[in-house]
Amino acid sequence: MDEILIDGRTRLFGIVGDPVTQVQTPQLMNALFQRQRINAVLLPFHVCATTFDRTLNGLMQMENLDGLVITVPHKVRARSLVAGLSATAQRVGAINVMRRQGDGRWYGDMFDGAGLIAGLKKQGFIIADRHVKQLGAGGSGAAVAFALLEEGAATLAISDPCHASAQALVARINHYYPHRPARLCSDSAAIAGIDLLINCSPVGMKPDDGLPAPFTDFAPALQVVDIIMHPDETPLLRLARGFGCRTTNGKPMIEGQLQAFAAFFGIDIGETA
Amino acid sequence: MDEILIDGRTRLFGIVGDPVTQVQTPQLMNALFQRQRINAVLLPFHVCATTFDRTLNGLMQMENLDGLVITVPHKVRARSLVAGLSATAQRVGAINVMRRQGDGRWYGDMFDGAGLIAGLKKQGFIIADRHVKQLGAGGSGAAVAFALLEEGAATLAISDPCHASAQALVARINHYYPHRPARLCSDSAAIAGIDLLINCSPVGMKPDDGLPAPFTDFAPALQVVDIIMHPDETPLLRLARGFGCRTTNGKPMIEGQLQAFAAFFGIDIGETA
Repeated sequence: MDEILIDGRTRLFGIVGDPVTQVQTPQLMNALFQRQRINAVLLPFHVCATTFDRTLNGLMQMENLDGLVITVPHKVRARSLVAGLSATAQRVGAINVMRRQGDGRWYGDMFDGAGLIAGLKKQGFIIADRHVKQLGAGGSGAAVAFALLEEGAATLAISDPCHASAQALVARINHYYPHRPARLCSDSAAIAGIDLLINCSPVGMKPDDGLPAPFTDFAPALQVVDIIMHPDETPLLRLARGFGCRTTNGKPMIEGQLQAFAAFFGIDIGETA
Repeated sequence: MDEILIDGRTRLFGIVGDPVTQVQTPQLMNALFQRQRINAVLLPFHVCATTFDRTLNGLMQMENLDGLVITVPHKVRARSLVAGLSATAQRVGAINVMRRQGDGRWYGDMFDGAGLIAGLKKQGFIIADRHVKQLGAGGSGAAVAFALLEEGAATLAISDPCHASAQALVARINHYYPHRPARLCSDSAAIAGIDLLINCSPVGMKPDDGLPAPFTDFAPALQVVDIIMHPDETPLLRLARGFGCRTTNGKPMIEGQLQAFAAFFGIDIGETA
């Protein structure tokens, strides 16, 4: 692989999160820039929630910064900083990418949902007509919920320690899907009748995190997804693997978004996948 | 050379300027990071004067950004953003580096002067007891002026299209050097009795810039320095070379500062120069 050569003409992209050490987007996108011989680089930007608006307002003024990927916990908040939103981002109420337009205004979109579906399909997960239980109703959770229903999930039970967030997401979904496939589930560990369990909460990222809900056993037919990327195997995935379930972490979700990121940022990625 | 691998743990440094395409610091510092196998990278940050405070206040909040190099035209303005200043920076009234301290506060220093002197000495320029004419009284100009006098220059004539800036710099120098070796020179092209001519103004950076003062001819014994780095040879240096003068551009000034930058940022650069 050619080396990254950074000079005064290098265009900048960033991924904004807290924490940020776990992100994989820099490695994936920079390999793509190198392969295409594009003088650009994507960097980790560690920004806390308390200083998010101030820092983003600063970054958005930087002349050679062309776009940002937004990750936990900023996807909902970032939505309010951009001047324009895609239809998906409007519906989901959160963004995970933003770019500067030709007129200098910033525009946001949300690819988490489509990325996850692409990644799951590639691995043989089945979503259509399935009953889904989802933990976590934040920015990614909202994106995932809408994408699962678009993909034909039969029902969606949503749990979040913040009941208000879960309730708001359920209401928002049922506004767009009037046959009301989504419901609030106050018992986070309830999985009777569920075919697909998906964790969209951050529980499992930290070394001393346990399970995102007090699960004890899984049927082998249950499909289990954790959108966390690091560690590779969260306690939830370890438990599920022990019961013989089909499992995946969040890496396929990000890999499934790479081409969408590149297209969104106006980067020609050539012929290869 | 090993490639730069950027991941979520990469520490960030930047060089802030307008324009920024001409900077050499990323190439020099990143080669150093690679050689020492330090997971850090220095990037060009293109920031305009009108958004400087807002953008810097944002960048300074970023948790994985450890330091900034400041270049034209921000060196004086940046001084007001840091909580602490070195003795040199206080005297000069400008900074060209800033770093986050252990207590979270930012601290600034100014190495342009020492860097230039190191670069000039390496190339055989003679400063001690010489009569110097300097064009430009901005942030770099102030740093250069103090360094020239520290190095033993006999007298220093300063010209700047902004008379107030030049006057303020002269007054500041003569406060520290009460035998008053510095004087304002309203005729920018006057070089009678001058041994060393140094351009610290930005005139010469842009493709259609001419000379920084209406010079017509130089004595071959005149030493001519232009702290501009790009283009390699400004109109001033081209004229001087035509008359057989010893000349240099601003690259030795930056190369002379690399070790100082590394030490200031707490980076172990090992044994080699």
